[in-house]
Amino acid sequence: MTHGKRPDLIVHEDEPFNAETNLAALRESSLTATDAFYVRSHGAVPAVDPATWRLRLHGRVERELDLSLTTLREAFPERTETATLQCAGNRRAGLMRIRDIPGEAPWGAGATGTATWTGVALADVLALAGPLDGAEHVGFEGADVSPEAEPPQRFGGSIGLEKARRPEVLLAWAMNGEPLPPVHGAPLRVVVPGYIGARSVKWVDTIEVRERPWEGYFQHVVYRLLPEDGSPGPGAGMPLGLIALNSDVLSPADGATVPAGPLGVRGYAFAGGERHVVRVDVSLDGGGRWAQAELLEDLGPWAWRHWRATVDVPPGEHEIVVRAWDSSAATQPDDEAGLWNPKGYANNARPRIRVHAR
Amino acid sequence: MTHGKRPDLIVHEDEPFNAETNLAALRESSLTATDAFYVRSHGAVPAVDPATWRLRLHGRVERELDLSLTTLREAFPERTETATLQCAGNRRAGLMRIRDIPGEAPWGAGATGTATWTGVALADVLALAGPLDGAEHVGFEGADVSPEAEPPQRFGGSIGLEKARRPEVLLAWAMNGEPLPPVHGAPLRVVVPGYIGARSVKWVDTIEVRERPWEGYFQHVVYRLLPEDGSPGPGAGMPLGLIALNSDVLSPADGATVPAGPLGVRGYAFAGGERHVVRVDVSLDGGGRWAQAELLEDLGPWAWRHWRATVDVPPGEHEIVVRAWDSSAATQPDDEAGLWNPKGYANNARPRIRVHAR
Repeated sequence: MTHGKRPDLIVHEDEPFNAETNLAALRESSLTATDAFYVRSHGAVPAVDPATWRLRLHGRVERELDLSLTTLREAFPERTETATLQCAGNRRAGLMRIRDIPGEAPWGAGATGTATWTGVALADVLALAGPLDGAEHVGFEGADVSPEAEPPQRFGGSIGLEKARRPEVLLAWAMNGEPLPPVHGAPLRVVVPGYIGARSVKWVDTIEVRERPWEGYFQHVVYRLLPEDGSPGPGAGMPLGLIALNSDVLSPADGATVPAGPLGVRGYAFAGGERHVVRVDVSLDGGGRWAQAELLEDLGPWAWRHWRATVDVPPGEHEIVVRAWDSSAATQPDDEAGLWNPKGYANNARPRIRVHAR
Repeated sequence: MTHGKRPDLIVHEDEPFNAETNLAALRESSLTATDAFYVRSHGAVPAVDPATWRLRLHGRVERELDLSLTTLREAFPERTETATLQCAGNRRAGLMRIRDIPGEAPWGAGATGTATWTGVALADVLALAGPLDGAEHVGFEGADVSPEAEPPQRFGGSIGLEKARRPEVLLAWAMNGEPLPPVHGAPLRVVVPGYIGARSVKWVDTIEVRERPWEGYFQHVVYRLLPEDGSPGPGAGMPLGLIALNSDVLSPADGATVPAGPLGVRGYAFAGGERHVVRVDVSLDGGGRWAQAELLEDLGPWAWRHWRATVDVPPGEHEIVVRAWDSSAATQPDDEAGLWNPKGYANNARPRIRVHAR
């Protein structure tokens, strides 16, 4: 088993390891099993010795910190949050059907998953350090070196200080109640609920309290939304952060042959930031009439909702379209055509699958 | 001048007074003049004597409060915020072109505006009262009695305690640097930036710290999003609160005849909650190709952005389509067809105007 993962992961790259969860595995439960959870890496899993490992916090603070894992565990209250992580490239394959995106992996709808994360609140560690006037951002740097960055560098990124101070942002050493596996960032990773996965920096060993957003490659050059005719470059486009409302179908599979009659449909829907999913609609006639799906377990404000619906399919070909609504009364864009962007991020179009009923 | 308003307001109802801002007046400035600001009322402007007026705060708190205006002004730090208010019915006219909505006013794109609001932070007043365990919501009740409610009752609504504790939520006595006019809620109104206007309760005199959301008519029956085939009723649909990303065109006017050649287009774009507008695109070919508009003054995190673009229009008929993007990489839905709902709320479709160039 590569990196402790089930063999049914869809592997996009062996080294660095990049693999998404099979939709059938995502469907099993609202909580995603660790051995099925997607992995997005930009460098090899770094060798870290927990005994000598230190977390250093510096920058615009009253007091710099240099902490062992033991101190982190002993000096701060332990917190657990259930949170969905979602790669900014989740569902890129839908954009690539519009127009190819060379050099990027064709992630399907499995570059997302939900786990419980245990560690300490970043807010508590920041409070000990004491951010100074002018502190507006908190940057994270991991131990992994990415050869694909220009120039090659350690992976990193930042979030605003206001978000960093919210209780849901964790420095986590456990996932689903077990020690964090190496491929998911052991001994310590950041978990930023509601934000793109790239901000949940793995193997974090350096935190910098800053006046400005992160200027490293993975925030200043990539993980940015460009207009359709834009070109990636330092500062071009807008930095991604908050995740837009999204959903997809987990079963039946796209293109499946199913028995005519009542058909169960199941999927996920996720709203980032302070929003939550309030409704999911399913249509068999391209969006003319919609039936409401049932929302399944509520795992709290930072987790997706699984949903299910039963539609009646007569014999023949059918397209099933889904749209989620969030607590701001926003819904998803109709289709991918208007969402294509040069790096293929943030596809949140209404999902559509085809089934053949007989 | 009715209620101190300019004669060019578009009046939907005289009593209670309901009027929206002319788009030409909205276009004048990113800050909306008080005498042009829209008014949405559900009852007559109540007669309030500021000398005997009291603000009462009760419910799940350690200490109930009963405060005069003088105490409010003297006991708490004064705060000013620039914030956009937007009625949940803004742009309803676009939904009514799909299918009529009897009993509701056909608000255009002028049921919104941006002002500076001065008063005290609700958070500071709540801190004095001390919310108890179980407190989750903060309700507001105004002095205005609404005969349209079932049963007739004072206007009211609630927001979550977490939002209520954020510094941007005000109890305001001034608007654009002048005393709050009676029609806008004098002597005191709530201002909840990023939320539908209905939560910014005018003439507020009672605040209740609650375990559950407001159960009055204006939150439990109306100001809720229903599915297309739903019927309004207690608890039906989802309560509105956060405002979804929206935009509209302020000039040229829809249907205008304009000179062929370069044409300036100006409008507003607004993202509710913690999101902000990052890009506005303009298309002349129905969304095939988009040009980026220039974002004008940044009035802070709770205000809309005005934007402008220049497009080149050859002689003939043209449709101009606009879409805004927010900091979560979300954009607006294509059109109103999928957004129609029985009460006509939350139309945030991409705006489209037609011009004839010659």
